[in-house]
Amino acid sequence: MTEHSLIPVTFYPQNKTIAVSPGSSLFEAAIESGFFIRGFCGGRGICGKCKVKLLNQQLPHTPVEMKVLSEEERKNGIHLACKTIVNNALSVEVPEFGGDKETRALTSDSNLEFELDANIQKKQLSLQESSLSDQHADQDLLLQALALPEPTEIPLPVMQKLPQTLRSSGYDITAVLAGNRVISIEVGHNLDKFGVAFDVGTTTIVGSLMDLNSGKMLAVAARTNPQAIHGADVISRINYCSSHVDGLKKLQKLAIAALNEIIEEVLEQVDSAPENVYEISIAGNATMNHLIMGIDPSAIAAMPFIPAFKRSQTVTAGELALKAQPLAPVQILANISGYVGGDIVALILAYDIHHSDKLTLALDIGTNGEIVLGSRKRLLSCSAAAGPAFEGGHISSGMRAGIGAIDKIRLNHNDLHIHVIGDVAPVGLCGTGLIDAAAVLCDTRIIDSTGQITTPDGKIPDALQRRIISSDSGNDFLLVPRSETQTNMPIIISQRDVRELQLAKGAIAAGVEVLFNELGIGAADVEQVLIAGAFGNYIDKDNTFKIGLLPDIDQKLVKFVGNAASMGAKKFLLSNAARKEAQRIIEFTEYVELSARPDFQDKFMDAMMF
Amino acid sequence: MTEHSLIPVTFYPQNKTIAVSPGSSLFEAAIESGFFIRGFCGGRGICGKCKVKLLNQQLPHTPVEMKVLSEEERKNGIHLACKTIVNNALSVEVPEFGGDKETRALTSDSNLEFELDANIQKKQLSLQESSLSDQHADQDLLLQALALPEPTEIPLPVMQKLPQTLRSSGYDITAVLAGNRVISIEVGHNLDKFGVAFDVGTTTIVGSLMDLNSGKMLAVAARTNPQAIHGADVISRINYCSSHVDGLKKLQKLAIAALNEIIEEVLEQVDSAPENVYEISIAGNATMNHLIMGIDPSAIAAMPFIPAFKRSQTVTAGELALKAQPLAPVQILANISGYVGGDIVALILAYDIHHSDKLTLALDIGTNGEIVLGSRKRLLSCSAAAGPAFEGGHISSGMRAGIGAIDKIRLNHNDLHIHVIGDVAPVGLCGTGLIDAAAVLCDTRIIDSTGQITTPDGKIPDALQRRIISSDSGNDFLLVPRSETQTNMPIIISQRDVRELQLAKGAIAAGVEVLFNELGIGAADVEQVLIAGAFGNYIDKDNTFKIGLLPDIDQKLVKFVGNAASMGAKKFLLSNAARKEAQRIIEFTEYVELSARPDFQDKFMDAMMF
Repeated sequence: MTEHSLIPVTFYPQNKTIAVSPGSSLFEAAIESGFFIRGFCGGRGICGKCKVKLLNQQLPHTPVEMKVLSEEERKNGIHLACKTIVNNALSVEVPEFGGDKETRALTSDSNLEFELDANIQKKQLSLQESSLSDQHADQDLLLQALALPEPTEIPLPVMQKLPQTLRSSGYDITAVLAGNRVISIEVGHNLDKFGVAFDVGTTTIVGSLMDLNSGKMLAVAARTNPQAIHGADVISRINYCSSHVDGLKKLQKLAIAALNEIIEEVLEQVDSAPENVYEISIAGNATMNHLIMGIDPSAIAAMPFIPAFKRSQTVTAGELALKAQPLAPVQILANISGYVGGDIVALILAYDIHHSDKLTLALDIGTNGEIVLGSRKRLLSCSAAAGPAFEGGHISSGMRAGIGAIDKIRLNHNDLHIHVIGDVAPVGLCGTGLIDAAAVLCDTRIIDSTGQITTPDGKIPDALQRRIISSDSGNDFLLVPRSETQTNMPIIISQRDVRELQLAKGAIAAGVEVLFNELGIGAADVEQVLIAGAFGNYIDKDNTFKIGLLPDIDQKLVKFVGNAASMGAKKFLLSNAARKEAQRIIEFTEYVELSARPDFQDKFMDAMMF
Repeated sequence: MTEHSLIPVTFYPQNKTIAVSPGSSLFEAAIESGFFIRGFCGGRGICGKCKVKLLNQQLPHTPVEMKVLSEEERKNGIHLACKTIVNNALSVEVPEFGGDKETRALTSDSNLEFELDANIQKKQLSLQESSLSDQHADQDLLLQALALPEPTEIPLPVMQKLPQTLRSSGYDITAVLAGNRVISIEVGHNLDKFGVAFDVGTTTIVGSLMDLNSGKMLAVAARTNPQAIHGADVISRINYCSSHVDGLKKLQKLAIAALNEIIEEVLEQVDSAPENVYEISIAGNATMNHLIMGIDPSAIAAMPFIPAFKRSQTVTAGELALKAQPLAPVQILANISGYVGGDIVALILAYDIHHSDKLTLALDIGTNGEIVLGSRKRLLSCSAAAGPAFEGGHISSGMRAGIGAIDKIRLNHNDLHIHVIGDVAPVGLCGTGLIDAAAVLCDTRIIDSTGQITTPDGKIPDALQRRIISSDSGNDFLLVPRSETQTNMPIIISQRDVRELQLAKGAIAAGVEVLFNELGIGAADVEQVLIAGAFGNYIDKDNTFKIGLLPDIDQKLVKFVGNAASMGAKKFLLSNAARKEAQRIIEFTEYVELSARPDFQDKFMDAMMF
């Protein structure tokens, strides 16, 4: 067999060298080697986020790069990693703005009250050794000591450990039970038991280490969902599965690797090891749930949008190659539909919306906007394709809410006051910053009701007037000039950015209207509004109403509940009762398919207006 | 890393070359490469069965070889493979007498009557495709169509296949159920379902392909248990596990490889494939059952002789790497004790001894001799360490009952009539031949009551007299001179061979006596004798009594039942009721530990006499 020789590519400032097959794109090669370059469009050259600088060599720019990169960038040797084909040894500088771990807002949590009722039991057993006159088999000794109602299940890996464990422990062992299944036997008596509750978002994965004895959270960690390199939203992930050999396997592997990194990080914080993790819960949207399980989600993307499963699934950590006890159950939260997934079930579960007397409107604003409306009498749900605008995706200067992101903008005297996360020079604009900017531009009528960036000469302060820049594709609004940014690129809001925001907020607002209609109520009837999602806790309530993301409801009724999916995942992990509840939730909650509703399109057109 | 370079060794007449690490024994190296050289003692140089001829080079003989090999053999370049250390390239001739597949007597079968009640069900399903107004998940469609009582289990590999299988089949699928577990889903409607029932003996493995729809046997195949290279009996296998790193893994791998060869062979006979095998049953002695499951059997070998399990075990074909549907259940028959295993449960099950009114004595004569005595009122069992004599092991000219084996010997006029399997020049002597020979020698008083080979001058025909040959270690009895054998070696019965036979038959006869005592009965009370085991069908009934293997029972009551373990394994495979019965059998059958019985040693000394 002949093999192509591999080509070295070195990344700076990390000074890390990888070996690349000739002809690969730099973007894909980096990802395959576990080296993260950000990107939102799955390597199609659209998002322009995977910029790198070639240090030792000049390459011609492709037509796509000519379009996306400025002349100055091109002069400086900037390329798109996804459009750079590796044929010779390369030295590459990767801009790093804002570490992955610093992502804020994702690990915040409220205290929820529920009874601790963990699935995992540890039993200390002192067995009576067999004798010549009493030749009990090892298995029978264990079963007698456990004294559980039949059938007790002892899987093969436990049977394989049993003879040695009994004899090396002097017959003093600890048996770990998940229901009637013995998932581990251990020498001596160790009662530590941990679980990990995951919220697997399209953009971000958060894992919480829970003490299954006390119910307390011991540690938390987050990672960017590394699948993001193959597309920002669930549809592009699903397309990646359908259009790439082993695409499903690759996406599964990426997610599992991130989950394992999180497990290692939270265990390190309490100085423990994967063998002490006995159960895992996962709340993700339906597509994430499918990808983690290695189940093809293609049918979710095409009419009639069918998931492989709705009810909760139980597999083992070993089956998913998760770093935990190999037989530890992994509980994947039930989905209501292909687009209202386990994360929303977690939200309903966390706040007991299906048991509440209060008529509740709950929104989870992430890459998709899921909406829940109702009470214990009737509960509706739907999903509106908001796109990644609220997470900084598809926005010229967009980024996630990490160090260097502009997250707050206010009108201060006659100009803008701009706040940056981490108090550093700005890198880009995150979702809350975008909403604030839009609100300010609406207030000053720089954006008109149709969303056009206008030039209202003389009617606005000069400082603002100067920020309006005309271009071929309409006006842009300058937030920070290039001289003041980390990237040496200006931070702007383009006309296209405003359109993206309109689509996003319009979809959600129209979805809410459809559910109002379906339930036969109006905004005035709503008694409680819960806003969940990555940016929920940091959003400016007032501006949310100003841009028309939320209908005309008393602001006092609005509560930001942060990472509700994580909360639900924890409850699901810690309470057997909650697991039954999840099944009731998916049976009780009606799903409204917006694409089947003729009224949705009308409302959507209206709701895009400011 | 540096690596030793490997040394080529070529085997003739097969002309097969393997690569060997320098310093390995030729025996082990051959086995590791999957090249079978027979041997009974696990490479200790005792059995003298692994003779090979070095073709290109003269090596000195070790002290062990000096003792085991004749001067002529040594002159001819014969060595023991287990004592030949590979340091240079070698060409080796391996004598091949009697193919493995020709082994007779192992696949014979009686027809048993029982109700077919297979565990595996195939259901043809035509599902109603989901629509926008009826967005059932794939899993729910399947569960609704199956309409089984909850909980129905759909394992992850089936979930992973589900979306594609539904859509590529136009929603016409076949679901395969093992109880409430969906073990496979298949495109279209195919109702074929096969199972394989294995009898895993210490020496021989037999597999029967069964049609799970009709209960009929479709094909059968047998293999020498390749673990035999690491010892002839269960104790030496267990010692191998304890004394070798990865010993357990190696023995498991060898057995699984043989099972897979058998599966392939039986499937070839019906032109089918592993994906149509949905269930497997295994009846072996307790040690074989442990080794196949990868469970350390060490505790069986040491006081108080404890197996890891007694009750029947269920694992999956995938867990054992067996060639079948990965989720096909593998049912391992229950053991009564560490030395009365699943093969004996299979015997009791096949003949319903525990339900019988007849007082039954059942013997399984293999490498161990297991004995069952009783009726539906009370049933006893024990195991006597007979050694491998009845299977040709530890006997000078011993071999298994294959082509070239002397299997029958009669006194004909004044000399011997000798019958050879396959009507070829003889190679050696199998168990039935050994019993016949001993009976003839007893009849003619060449063997006295203590087992001594005497020279009763003048009292026996000259032809027999001439066969008695004096040697240092006592007299030998010549069966076939070297000029008439395939091996150019004489076939003899040595004084040591007679001692081996005495130990074997003495152990079994004493075991029977102990059970008689325990049950408070005598030989005259026995109403039925069942003799199972590899050589059962071919043994001479009369001679069995003559040499004192069986007590003084009416010969008419004796029935040879052949491979009863195979029969029981088939019943276990085909009948759910039989599985429950197996559990009743191990609860009902008492185990008598002979090593704990002071009366056993006395009876053993007596029973060794002729």
